[in-house]
Amino acid sequence: MTTVSLLHEPHHDGSPLYVSDDHPAPGGRVRLRLRTSSDDPVERVWVRTTYDAEPVFHECAVEETADDTVWWSGEVLAHNPVTHYRFLLSGPGGQRWLTAAGVVDHDPPDTFDFTVSSHDPPPDWGRDAVVYQVFPDRFARSARADERPTPTWAVAATWDDEVVFELDDPRTATQLYGGDLDGVVEHLDHVAAVGATVLYTTPVFPGESNHRYNASTFEGVDPVLGGDEAYARLSTAVHDRGWRILGDLTTNHTGDTHEWFLDAADPASDRRTWYHFAADGSYECWMGWRSLPKLNLDEPGARRAMVSGPDSVVARWLRPPYAVDGWRIDVANMTGRLGAVDVNRAVAQDVRRTVAAERPDGLVIGEHNHDASGDLDGDGWHGTMNYSGFAWPVWSWLRDPDSPARPFGRPVPVPRRPGPQVQRSLREWLARYGWRASTTSWNVLGSHDSARIRTVVGDPATHRLAVGLQFTLPGVPMIFAGDEIGLQGVAGEDSRRPMPWHHPDTWDHTTLATYGALARARAEHVALRRGGLRWAHVDDDTMVFLREHPDGSVLVCARRAPGPAIDLPVELGEVVVSTEADPVGPQAAGHLGLTIYRV
Amino acid sequence: MTTVSLLHEPHHDGSPLYVSDDHPAPGGRVRLRLRTSSDDPVERVWVRTTYDAEPVFHECAVEETADDTVWWSGEVLAHNPVTHYRFLLSGPGGQRWLTAAGVVDHDPPDTFDFTVSSHDPPPDWGRDAVVYQVFPDRFARSARADERPTPTWAVAATWDDEVVFELDDPRTATQLYGGDLDGVVEHLDHVAAVGATVLYTTPVFPGESNHRYNASTFEGVDPVLGGDEAYARLSTAVHDRGWRILGDLTTNHTGDTHEWFLDAADPASDRRTWYHFAADGSYECWMGWRSLPKLNLDEPGARRAMVSGPDSVVARWLRPPYAVDGWRIDVANMTGRLGAVDVNRAVAQDVRRTVAAERPDGLVIGEHNHDASGDLDGDGWHGTMNYSGFAWPVWSWLRDPDSPARPFGRPVPVPRRPGPQVQRSLREWLARYGWRASTTSWNVLGSHDSARIRTVVGDPATHRLAVGLQFTLPGVPMIFAGDEIGLQGVAGEDSRRPMPWHHPDTWDHTTLATYGALARARAEHVALRRGGLRWAHVDDDTMVFLREHPDGSVLVCARRAPGPAIDLPVELGEVVVSTEADPVGPQAAGHLGLTIYRV
Repeated sequence: MTTVSLLHEPHHDGSPLYVSDDHPAPGGRVRLRLRTSSDDPVERVWVRTTYDAEPVFHECAVEETADDTVWWSGEVLAHNPVTHYRFLLSGPGGQRWLTAAGVVDHDPPDTFDFTVSSHDPPPDWGRDAVVYQVFPDRFARSARADERPTPTWAVAATWDDEVVFELDDPRTATQLYGGDLDGVVEHLDHVAAVGATVLYTTPVFPGESNHRYNASTFEGVDPVLGGDEAYARLSTAVHDRGWRILGDLTTNHTGDTHEWFLDAADPASDRRTWYHFAADGSYECWMGWRSLPKLNLDEPGARRAMVSGPDSVVARWLRPPYAVDGWRIDVANMTGRLGAVDVNRAVAQDVRRTVAAERPDGLVIGEHNHDASGDLDGDGWHGTMNYSGFAWPVWSWLRDPDSPARPFGRPVPVPRRPGPQVQRSLREWLARYGWRASTTSWNVLGSHDSARIRTVVGDPATHRLAVGLQFTLPGVPMIFAGDEIGLQGVAGEDSRRPMPWHHPDTWDHTTLATYGALARARAEHVALRRGGLRWAHVDDDTMVFLREHPDGSVLVCARRAPGPAIDLPVELGEVVVSTEADPVGPQAAGHLGLTIYRV
Repeated sequence: MTTVSLLHEPHHDGSPLYVSDDHPAPGGRVRLRLRTSSDDPVERVWVRTTYDAEPVFHECAVEETADDTVWWSGEVLAHNPVTHYRFLLSGPGGQRWLTAAGVVDHDPPDTFDFTVSSHDPPPDWGRDAVVYQVFPDRFARSARADERPTPTWAVAATWDDEVVFELDDPRTATQLYGGDLDGVVEHLDHVAAVGATVLYTTPVFPGESNHRYNASTFEGVDPVLGGDEAYARLSTAVHDRGWRILGDLTTNHTGDTHEWFLDAADPASDRRTWYHFAADGSYECWMGWRSLPKLNLDEPGARRAMVSGPDSVVARWLRPPYAVDGWRIDVANMTGRLGAVDVNRAVAQDVRRTVAAERPDGLVIGEHNHDASGDLDGDGWHGTMNYSGFAWPVWSWLRDPDSPARPFGRPVPVPRRPGPQVQRSLREWLARYGWRASTTSWNVLGSHDSARIRTVVGDPATHRLAVGLQFTLPGVPMIFAGDEIGLQGVAGEDSRRPMPWHHPDTWDHTTLATYGALARARAEHVALRRGGLRWAHVDDDTMVFLREHPDGSVLVCARRAPGPAIDLPVELGEVVVSTEADPVGPQAAGHLGLTIYRV
């Protein structure tokens, strides 16, 4: 039995129970609440903020004492666009700080301070979404696909062929299965069964590869996918269901077959400076891949063509016939950055402004496979694909010791770590990204760029536990198509296996049903979308946390292995959903899985 | 006896033992070394850096195994102006990261990564200095002062009068003791006895207050201080000793009697926009003080006049007759920041560029009484007055429980904290500021803006211990004139007590001698100026650390109270200096004080 629950700790987060307004008008006031335990001898509390980088303390007052909880209340001004704050608690035990990464008893830098932003918030649909990611060549093939010739660059594959994924084998990029957009339309009922509300496809521009991140043009949809008409059919079908659709744009680079790059090959071209050519004709490209020349977004012409204003690629695709609701920006971390040049922030702001001008409720998610802290505070990307703050911590808690899966770039597999280490990562990343961006970012368990979660964790029950965390920790679940039926993959390219529509016997139907149940729970319980995050208990094999909201709260109990009983000062209500038939709870022994309870 | 020394931990820092080049040319290579203990089963080590925000791992190799230490070596490219890095260590015990804040066993954000910068480094004299801060009205009064009339705004005080320091008493700003610059010249032998090599005076511009932070003009030196000729005499006298002199400039604001502000009072003036006037004629000012109107440095005219180019105030004072060697920039944290406007970075860069154009070895120190992390990475301020990363941690380790002294803005006195909490603060702040900026920043124990260290700690021996830390932890010691003889003060204004030159019986001569001895040790032992920082032992009442350099290393043992014996795997050599007659060492019981040993 553990003796002191984490619930005893002082708590505040960015959710409605604690913050009166998560997008205050500039200069507006924000009321902040925090809770302490009645038996925690706190005498005085201040919220410390900074105005123009000068520290200021505002005293908090006791607002309410209820049961075992003292509610304190204080106020800050939204003097700057982003307001940083933390709490100072003093009492006979000394002085402690409450930061977004937890309570500390030393005087730390501002690193993990809470933030509230006056920049326009992300659209509600983006924060409440379940996202389904489709890699078009491998998702589904409509009958129309049979009528299309195989492009000259491609090696035709039949749907049951094994995926070639060795990076030094050219077929890894040229093996073409012929999935198309009408194929996607035909399987939207499946997407609905998973509970998704946003369809996000990897690039659909013509490009001489199966992944199409090397676009030849941004002027239309690849005929191999069905062209503009097929995209319009897909967009309409998605919107008819009340869902949203997101595109995928490489602001960082084009393909070397792109019309801009072909033009820029002429040193006299106006577009020469849109890329980074050296005197010898060599050019900068993405990670050394010559097929992916890097754009120079410090160049006004390239910036306008790609991201800024109504004639940009970013803007035009938000209009019919495509009518995307926003963008996932590829390698957003590197976009506009090269050596001494760094216009990344300006590019992110441009993308955001351009989208907002076309569609006030547009969404912009920047891919960042590292630390996006500096890029997420409100006027650029709304959120990120959260590998660092979600995928890697969950992988490291749940990995199969024999799995070779690695986080991007890491030369060794992710380590298997005990719960407290994983929780610390989760807290620090959430703190660094801030509540708003964290809850808008995508809880990915993997993608077309990584190993599949099933391969990482090794067994169906642990897979479902991971999915349980994906749907219950703050953030937007993003499901890479095929995860829900238990597809495998040891690395990104291997994970791009075709959906075995015609082999339903190979599907993990139990896990598929779990996705649907978790998505329904997320839709029905606002606490899972907008509730706070309060940790109740963490040990090596167990994580228990509350998601609390004025309209109802839930408790999530996750165990990666059987373990001892947990003493929780919370009365559990009915089971909302459980990843295993038997609910996972605080009782001794227990078993692997995750259960959501009403509280 | 402690069982495992902190010396067992893997270690790296920014000093020459570990970094081949602390200001690599852009694109250059930097060789990085780290050490692990021979009995720490590390199998492989990588340095992880980010190029254009993309994580990259470079494997390290064993370079040498010596005694109980394994030396690893790896390399990074200075691809971006500031290169961030940390180390990944793997072995049978799992994976650990070595960051600038220490070893962690979870996967944290980049917050505490090491950095190396390709921006021009600070001048050597700035890093090797001992700085002596003079508040001119209170330091010394030459015979010439008697000939000068008291300005109409001032209330004349005789040298032995008590200082008025209540903020609501107008005399706090108008009480004039009549210290002058020739008085400073007359006491440079005293400054030499303290071991200083840089004289920094608070503002000398005419201003209607004893502190002169409300300048009436930047065109010359206050006649009350002796005018331009007196400043020239001081500057010459300082330079004749081979020392340097620094000015103090309020880039953030002027006085309300300033010629620019008087001109700007006319709405039709070209200078109207140099300040932040509202339609009703009110204006922004520093912390609500109407006598300190805030400059609008987003306005090109104001920017040029103050900080940019050869005609700016920043530039002109670097030339004769003043010939300052650089600037301490007042409230650098707020400069150029107001609500949604933030040109702070650009202003800092302008100041730096302007200084460098006049004097390539000029120094720029930005006052920041909070968290300067974002402002110190290499192309703006060289360093800061390090309250957060030095003064407050030391105060909190050594404070007298009855002292009312408070860090700026904090509504309660600094808490008395045990060693490990204090060490954690020291490590985190050093990590956030980076090695170069931390070692260039000023280790302040107080200033004209805070309580005096003697009042904070309460007794002479603890005062000397604090000074010992000031001279031995990374950073440049800055002595506020009078600290060395034990002057007291409960808050900034109270600390501005006149130097009792004619009452040497009141001086703490023992402490004065300690300052001199510590300064000599710093001058003689490069390890104290440029050596690394490796923690050996920390408990509630004890801190032991090594400063290591290829040209010789020292060990520092500090105890705030008697304590148990410490098991140190280091052979101590001769005592370099000790703040108490009996050296402080690892033996049991021990006593309060600080001792530096050769090792």
